[in-house]
Amino acid sequence: MVSLLRSRLADLPVADESARHAVRRRADNVLRPTGALAWLDEVAVWKAGWQRSPSPTVERPAVLVFAADHGVTAAGVSNYPAEVTAAMLAATQQGRATINAFARTAGATVTAVDVGVGVPTHDMRHEAALTRERFDEITALAFAAVDALDTDLLVLGELGIGNTTAAAAIAAAFAGGEATVWVGRGTGVDDAGLERKRIAVQKSVRRIAGIVDPLEILREVGGSELVAMAAAAVAARHRSIPIVLDGYICTASMLPLHIAEPTALDHCIVGHCSSEPGHRLLIERLDKHPLLDLDMRLGEGSGAMAAVPLVDMACAGVVGVATFDEWFGPPG
Amino acid sequence: MVSLLRSRLADLPVADESARHAVRRRADNVLRPTGALAWLDEVAVWKAGWQRSPSPTVERPAVLVFAADHGVTAAGVSNYPAEVTAAMLAATQQGRATINAFARTAGATVTAVDVGVGVPTHDMRHEAALTRERFDEITALAFAAVDALDTDLLVLGELGIGNTTAAAAIAAAFAGGEATVWVGRGTGVDDAGLERKRIAVQKSVRRIAGIVDPLEILREVGGSELVAMAAAAVAARHRSIPIVLDGYICTASMLPLHIAEPTALDHCIVGHCSSEPGHRLLIERLDKHPLLDLDMRLGEGSGAMAAVPLVDMACAGVVGVATFDEWFGPPG
Repeated sequence: MVSLLRSRLADLPVADESARHAVRRRADNVLRPTGALAWLDEVAVWKAGWQRSPSPTVERPAVLVFAADHGVTAAGVSNYPAEVTAAMLAATQQGRATINAFARTAGATVTAVDVGVGVPTHDMRHEAALTRERFDEITALAFAAVDALDTDLLVLGELGIGNTTAAAAIAAAFAGGEATVWVGRGTGVDDAGLERKRIAVQKSVRRIAGIVDPLEILREVGGSELVAMAAAAVAARHRSIPIVLDGYICTASMLPLHIAEPTALDHCIVGHCSSEPGHRLLIERLDKHPLLDLDMRLGEGSGAMAAVPLVDMACAGVVGVATFDEWFGPPG
Repeated sequence: MVSLLRSRLADLPVADESARHAVRRRADNVLRPTGALAWLDEVAVWKAGWQRSPSPTVERPAVLVFAADHGVTAAGVSNYPAEVTAAMLAATQQGRATINAFARTAGATVTAVDVGVGVPTHDMRHEAALTRERFDEITALAFAAVDALDTDLLVLGELGIGNTTAAAAIAAAFAGGEATVWVGRGTGVDDAGLERKRIAVQKSVRRIAGIVDPLEILREVGGSELVAMAAAAVAARHRSIPIVLDGYICTASMLPLHIAEPTALDHCIVGHCSSEPGHRLLIERLDKHPLLDLDMRLGEGSGAMAAVPLVDMACAGVVGVATFDEWFGPPG
């Protein structure tokens, strides 16, 4: 069951410790007070470990934007009709969406991948969002999308009207307790919409009470693009491609991987913390820290893409700066 | 007295309201939920107003790094000998410092300007850091440095062993009360050094009790590179060049301008909040909000340069994204 993803989650490669060590040592010897760049030095160390190079760089950033429809929109959980997903997918494919503009600025390629537009998930209030066959199909699509990339830094993004509801259901299913804390306004629902969302999440989570397998929970209350992001993260790990995670939906899709295997997200950093209230809690749950905190709430991978230049600078701040020895000559 | 800067502070141009309005209207009509980029849309509006264009962009970012020595280093306020300023100036001029690496990543030019290396200020504990003549000389140097630039986004940075002490003295002089809150570890002094710093600041501020003129306070307890940054900010305003402010020292150098003329910093945003404890308080005092909050504490303009790509993305996120009308056709 959900076998393709499960099997790839079983044998994850680890980071290159010697590359990490080399970058950490250099960071401690470049022309500035030790620790003056604080966390950015750690970002460079992280990048080196997954790039498997003592000279990490960001040369070919890329974003995969997975798009899909959600049966739970029948519950009136979004301001927007489901058709908006298809329209935004087309805009992204033609370079006219926000993620395209951000990616051009960062020198990144954009690949929009249809994993279920016009093929909505089942309504998770009443049945599993995805069959096992669909889950595996989507996993295969995501694996192929990662395999087709030539990138050294990957952003995962999504498009899908209704998908903050799916994200909230995943978070609530793992966290237990009331759904309220995990339900935010998404694209901007009013109070009545927020209450419909809360009820839909509560109902979905209660339906699957007793299911503990993380990937099964993702199949039951996730969505096609959430499954695709989780699968892409695992595929990227096998190719040692580091990832910048985006907002609430992206982060929620990673939670099942983290629960299944606590080291599964070691190759991921969180690009930003969104204004969706549950996002900060999810990030803490993953033991991560966001690079940016700008109250963005768009998705598409936009918040993560906004952080890509910081990863580039973190690397340049070690690789491109003279050490004290290089500048003053060796001690002695 | 301090007449060159004062006269230029008297007739400041304002932003282009029609460019601001055009960008705000477009931001409300591009293909995303209104407000989904939150503050970044406001950054684009701000950039448009000073660039005086409805299509703001960041094409030619630049950083001016002003370097100078400080007489107050005699009080043992830094871990590093004053000679480090000259060494770091040379490294910056030869492209080997952190700011150079960051600037290359952001596509920015770096101009390092010597405004007093080897010509330390007087020891501000005992006398005015700068004579009126020196203040005007430095002002003229900074004006010339700005005039020589071809840029559409300016970062102001500094190099100067001892300059967090000068920054703390400026802040304390305006804020009153105990110096403690304004004195941090700078490049990393130990507890004894921190106490020497606190005493030096307290002594300097007490010496000038009764002086209320903001530019006179800057002359009394500032430093050459702090005066240069303040002067550069005013010169840039006259050329309508928007500015990204850096850390504690840069921000402290702007405080006298803000006190003298509350609109003087309207063309400036704060790039980052540093780990120097007084920085957050100073930013609040200027009614600003930092783009980044990464615990950096280097100076050189590095924290502001790290935020330059975000300004670029903020602009692209309005200019480079289709509006609903462009995508779906006009309503009707």
